[in-house]
Amino acid sequence: MTPHTSDAVRQAARESALTDEVVHSFATSTDPRLRVVMASLVRHLHAFIRDVRLTQEEWDASIAFLTRAGDITDAHRQEFILLSDVLGASMMTVAVNAPARSTATESTVFGPFFVEDAPLITSGDDISAGMPGRPCHVRGSVRSTAGEVLAGARVEVWAADDDGFYDVQYEGSELAGRAHLFTDEEGKYDYWTVQPAAYPIPHDGPVGDLLTAAGRSPMRPAHIHFMVSHPGYETLITHIFVAGDEWLDSDAVFGVKESLIVPFTEHEPGHGPRGRVIEETWSSTTFDIVLAPAEPGPDA
Amino acid sequence: MTPHTSDAVRQAARESALTDEVVHSFATSTDPRLRVVMASLVRHLHAFIRDVRLTQEEWDASIAFLTRAGDITDAHRQEFILLSDVLGASMMTVAVNAPARSTATESTVFGPFFVEDAPLITSGDDISAGMPGRPCHVRGSVRSTAGEVLAGARVEVWAADDDGFYDVQYEGSELAGRAHLFTDEEGKYDYWTVQPAAYPIPHDGPVGDLLTAAGRSPMRPAHIHFMVSHPGYETLITHIFVAGDEWLDSDAVFGVKESLIVPFTEHEPGHGPRGRVIEETWSSTTFDIVLAPAEPGPDA
Ligand SMILES: [Fe+2]
Ligand SMILES: [Fe+2]
Repeated sequence: MTPHTSDAVRQAARESALTDEVVHSFATSTDPRLRVVMASLVRHLHAFIRDVRLTQEEWDASIAFLTRAGDITDAHRQEFILLSDVLGASMMTVAVNAPARSTATESTVFGPFFVEDAPLITSGDDISAGMPGRPCHVRGSVRSTAGEVLAGARVEVWAADDDGFYDVQYEGSELAGRAHLFTDEEGKYDYWTVQPAAYPIPHDGPVGDLLTAAGRSPMRPAHIHFMVSHPGYETLITHIFVAGDEWLDSDAVFGVKESLIVPFTEHEPGHGPRGRVIEETWSSTTFDIVLAPAEPGPDA
Repeated sequence: MTPHTSDAVRQAARESALTDEVVHSFATSTDPRLRVVMASLVRHLHAFIRDVRLTQEEWDASIAFLTRAGDITDAHRQEFILLSDVLGASMMTVAVNAPARSTATESTVFGPFFVEDAPLITSGDDISAGMPGRPCHVRGSVRSTAGEVLAGARVEVWAADDDGFYDVQYEGSELAGRAHLFTDEEGKYDYWTVQPAAYPIPHDGPVGDLLTAAGRSPMRPAHIHFMVSHPGYETLITHIFVAGDEWLDSDAVFGVKESLIVPFTEHEPGHGPRGRVIEETWSSTTFDIVLAPAEPGPDA
């Protein structure tokens, strides 16, 4: 039965009035940015509920979903970041913060596996700490968009092992596959690790259930996370992706950018960089990083 | 510096393409409703991030907010419902599910203080169990929109005490101020309790911090929650609000509807209903409930 037009008009007016009332409730904030953000959040959230005519059961399921996400989140598991990632919200945040035109290295998602206070190493160290996988040498340089060598840039790296797990995902884990180091006088860095494998994002929680219901794969193509900073420059959060990985076109978190795909070269056993003799097949890759000058923030 | 128009166009195209990619990732779902809901959710979520040009720091703060909400949520505290409530999302869900034209009693928010398996009582029982507050007699009837008396309707009630707290908010709490009962042959119900007071929603968590930042009050006007059901009828989730309450125009969760405001009449000490002799001032109220016939669901 189609409702009378006047009923539909009255209903729409009631719904709009509610949105206006909620937006107005944030108008008392003394923080102008909070007013803008909350007004937009409320309008989009309400428009979503109206567009899909969300049922009470779906609202219940949404609350239960967030509650389960909270339950499973702890020091080593971050379901809310996973949720943001699989909805493309993390990548959209990266996108809106990317300058429209820049020769700087591109950003991608931060992901849920960063750990504060990863060990400081010196160039050439091995951070694999017994992780399973093929030895892999990673090297590169850090420069500015103006072409200056950036000595003393802080390069922080973290990656999964050959089984697709991060150190923190193992029971009673010790840190491995993650570290930070500083570029030398020529702006160079290098370290040994193991070549990371493609992995599924943790999918034994509500986000995994969502992916299953959507018929989506939880796989991410193999990658190494980088966070690179230097005073006076924008901090870069990015990955390098292993060229040829089968999941490059279907990253569960939409993080792949063409410019971040780099070849990992396979080498026969023998002499490697830094005088290392390797008795198994090993690989190497190069990632040269370009940082953009810091933009003055709103407080500057 | 205004970016070149072509840069702005290219940036907008990149952002739109990301939204399309994420929406498309849900197209593989075999559940048509999930496809519709997720497409709308992703489009509105992405539009919000784009509209406000969400910063990385604000994204961090959003993840931290949800993480804190998860931390504080337990069997007796539901921060995600509070969040939905203060954003008007709960009330919008009620609104979109309200029929455009009906003589049935209006709905309002469910709130975070419902408890499964509240005790069964018989008409005339007192559920206050020592809660502080003025004795209050509540009575009414349950009928259908067609005017039929509904005997055996299940009436579930829960409310705060005179200090504005629900039973479950007290340390080592026993259930009080909540119960369910069934209407008699004439469709009537009645029980004794204490008159509820206005109260602040729990505001020692992230939702409280949001209200503070917004300059919003956490207060709700005094009310009693009702959930009323009968086979063949739509289950009604609503409140009655105490007429004259000072917070009726600024309910923190936007739940007030004119039709749900009812007078609570004050009485001198003496004889009350059900042969009760009361040695202090007491009050009474009447709430007659009208249920709409159940609409056939999507599975019917
Ligand atoms: Fe990762
Ligand atoms: Fe309440």
